[in-house]
Amino acid sequence: MTMDQAMRSSVLMESVRKLLRKGALGPCYNLLSKLRPADTAALFRQLTDKEGPALFRVLLERNEELAGAVLGEIHPTAAAVDLLAGLNAEKVAAILHFIPADDAADLVSSMPEELAEEVLGLLGKEELRDVEGLLHHEEETAGRIMTPHFLALSEDTSVEEAIKALRSSESLEMVFYLYVLDAHRHLIGVISLRQLLLVAPETQLQSIMIRDVVSVRSTMDQEEVARIVQKYDLLAVPVVDEGNHLIGIITIDDIIDVIRDEATEDFYRLVGISEQERLLRSPLKSARVRLPWLFATFLGGVLASVIVSRFSDVLSRMVVLAGFMPVVLGMGGNLGSQSATITVRGLATGRIATKQVWGLIFKETRVALLLGTLYGAALIVAAIWVLKIPTRLGIVVGVSLLVTMLLGATIGSMLPVLFDKLRIDPAVATGPFVTTTVDILGILTFFSLASHFGFES
Amino acid sequence: MTMDQAMRSSVLMESVRKLLRKGALGPCYNLLSKLRPADTAALFRQLTDKEGPALFRVLLERNEELAGAVLGEIHPTAAAVDLLAGLNAEKVAAILHFIPADDAADLVSSMPEELAEEVLGLLGKEELRDVEGLLHHEEETAGRIMTPHFLALSEDTSVEEAIKALRSSESLEMVFYLYVLDAHRHLIGVISLRQLLLVAPETQLQSIMIRDVVSVRSTMDQEEVARIVQKYDLLAVPVVDEGNHLIGIITIDDIIDVIRDEATEDFYRLVGISEQERLLRSPLKSARVRLPWLFATFLGGVLASVIVSRFSDVLSRMVVLAGFMPVVLGMGGNLGSQSATITVRGLATGRIATKQVWGLIFKETRVALLLGTLYGAALIVAAIWVLKIPTRLGIVVGVSLLVTMLLGATIGSMLPVLFDKLRIDPAVATGPFVTTTVDILGILTFFSLASHFGFES
Repeated sequence: MTMDQAMRSSVLMESVRKLLRKGALGPCYNLLSKLRPADTAALFRQLTDKEGPALFRVLLERNEELAGAVLGEIHPTAAAVDLLAGLNAEKVAAILHFIPADDAADLVSSMPEELAEEVLGLLGKEELRDVEGLLHHEEETAGRIMTPHFLALSEDTSVEEAIKALRSSESLEMVFYLYVLDAHRHLIGVISLRQLLLVAPETQLQSIMIRDVVSVRSTMDQEEVARIVQKYDLLAVPVVDEGNHLIGIITIDDIIDVIRDEATEDFYRLVGISEQERLLRSPLKSARVRLPWLFATFLGGVLASVIVSRFSDVLSRMVVLAGFMPVVLGMGGNLGSQSATITVRGLATGRIATKQVWGLIFKETRVALLLGTLYGAALIVAAIWVLKIPTRLGIVVGVSLLVTMLLGATIGSMLPVLFDKLRIDPAVATGPFVTTTVDILGILTFFSLASHFGFES
Repeated sequence: MTMDQAMRSSVLMESVRKLLRKGALGPCYNLLSKLRPADTAALFRQLTDKEGPALFRVLLERNEELAGAVLGEIHPTAAAVDLLAGLNAEKVAAILHFIPADDAADLVSSMPEELAEEVLGLLGKEELRDVEGLLHHEEETAGRIMTPHFLALSEDTSVEEAIKALRSSESLEMVFYLYVLDAHRHLIGVISLRQLLLVAPETQLQSIMIRDVVSVRSTMDQEEVARIVQKYDLLAVPVVDEGNHLIGIITIDDIIDVIRDEATEDFYRLVGISEQERLLRSPLKSARVRLPWLFATFLGGVLASVIVSRFSDVLSRMVVLAGFMPVVLGMGGNLGSQSATITVRGLATGRIATKQVWGLIFKETRVALLLGTLYGAALIVAAIWVLKIPTRLGIVVGVSLLVTMLLGATIGSMLPVLFDKLRIDPAVATGPFVTTTVDILGILTFFSLASHFGFES
């Protein structure tokens, strides 16, 4: 946001708040009605849990269509559901009428079950069919995020008729392509809107359509759909069932949401947070979600304590040795996180092909060798000259650093690949497993080396 | 990728490789010419550094246009430049002719300087103007990623004339909107392509255009541009200079690349890797790029050693205490990384507004209090019963864990916000600063508590 925009939006915020507090609902609505729905949605994000639903009711009572448009712009869905607090099922059903079917299905599936059922019962026949049709597909699949409204015509339609059909389909959002079907509603071709303008009106669609249509199956994971749309620079991708019948389309704006959400999910998984954990929600719930992941760290930590206690004779001969544990484990863990992040992200964006994986692991190991040698040497110098520990022990500390960094890079780059092969999300692998494994192996290395080579026998 | 696709692409790969090895360049080209450019580009990613340029030459010698289309699909730009290895400037200039101006500018700026200058000297007048015009804008700004080719007409143009203009502009990629200019080439309106089909041919553009155009300034950061395009669900956004003259447009496919690249950049920054560090490149270069960030960790680690050495009297009274450092620092660091990731990602996607920042920090602290109390208690139990350390010391260890987790969550959520306020990328903040700070403060807490309360005096 530029400074200018930030300022404008904060002035706006204050005005809305003031009007709302005064109960000046008319002027409040007038202000909102002049904004773009996306801007109003952004404003809602700044409001408290009390102000939000109150302001939404102001909108809803005066303009259901605008209220629907704003609601459709509010992400994540849970925040949109929050705004519906206190509304009865009739009101909610009335708003859904103004929301695209895919967003409506998301909303319904995030509502309390009882409300959801009541709302579904109040929907019009066609709306109900659309929403239930989508809900019937699994979450995060192509079938769930598609819209069942699209323009599809038969192959013998003329361009003139196609343009007429286009004119009478004003309600469709974002039309870029015309899909062409055969007599059995199989998807057989696609034509860009612009193409229609370039040919004679009597031309039949089959003679200008592109036959090599990129399409996705309704069961395909949304992340994979996003990858295909990106790869072929599409504005929309048709969704087909197992019989290649066209059942919906996914437009680019939904793909962008998928790309952003999947990146966030990966970010979260890298550190063991679940995407379910919404910002600013109850700390108790957050704590519960993070508990298991931290438990792995905790167990690993306790195991590390047990290992160290086995080496208490080494430690008691030279207690200052303990002070080198943080630097050895820290450097190994950090390098491991770097290798893991490069691997996870490379796999997620498709930049690393399966064949290149060994090259990557080999490279990470060589990086670790270089950096480990360098920092190992630096640590030897620091240990002997700054911390005045015996030369033998100083060398043990430096070599431990090198070995732990090598372990970090190797484990960090290998574990995500292994998880990927086992069809587990590689992002899940990195957080708990890499750091805990590096900690334990690092301690074992450190104290084994110290007890074998650290002291003259 | 579905299994089916994966299989098909690996069979294809092998065929191409075999033909290339045999020197059967004709059949090799025939195979490639049947693929979509994006598929051929994906194939190139699997080839070795020798095979890649060789195969590219096969393409280039037979079909410059196709070679250009494939080159435009290869990301990152450095990989595309690699394919040009060994080609003379004339050849390179000839390919650039078939690549969109923004991609061409990227390529030129990634080439060795000498080659770049030679290539620029060989470009046609118009191409040179386009490419140089883009290169003149700073990297990662709207001006740099825009295309200077777009359809803009004056406000008194009729719909009929507009459609004619559209017909004769076949070379423009991805036209979705028509931009409307006044007599001084100021951007004053926009019309969707579809709108043209819905009105009478004699209608003037000014009577159907939308006057409230969302546009961006050429100096705007690309990340901000992406945010605007997402917010308003645009397919393309017009770029204007300081005088509101239309100078280019940015299409959605480039925005998707920005979103993906910015996410990758943030991933990398979180662990201190630079985006410049290309996958599978020279380990020496990688090591050099990661050196400074690890240096912060190293310095922090050495400082930690010095601190521990000051407490050697405490340690020598109870050497097993050292074994609890990994669990205390590990848990604190992990919780800190979680808080930092939530904050960084929330700021990047715009989900956390500035006003909500204190709420987030407060929440993270409460999460830490809950988890710290729980795991602190668990650690006390483990320390006393499993590791058999004195009760007093066990309690010290548990409380240290709680305090360090509190520190981790507070520092992890506050530092990115602070960096954001100072206009430094918050992602940079998290990696080195959070973990190192938590390590040092955690050790200080642990040993101070142990020396004050751990032993009966």
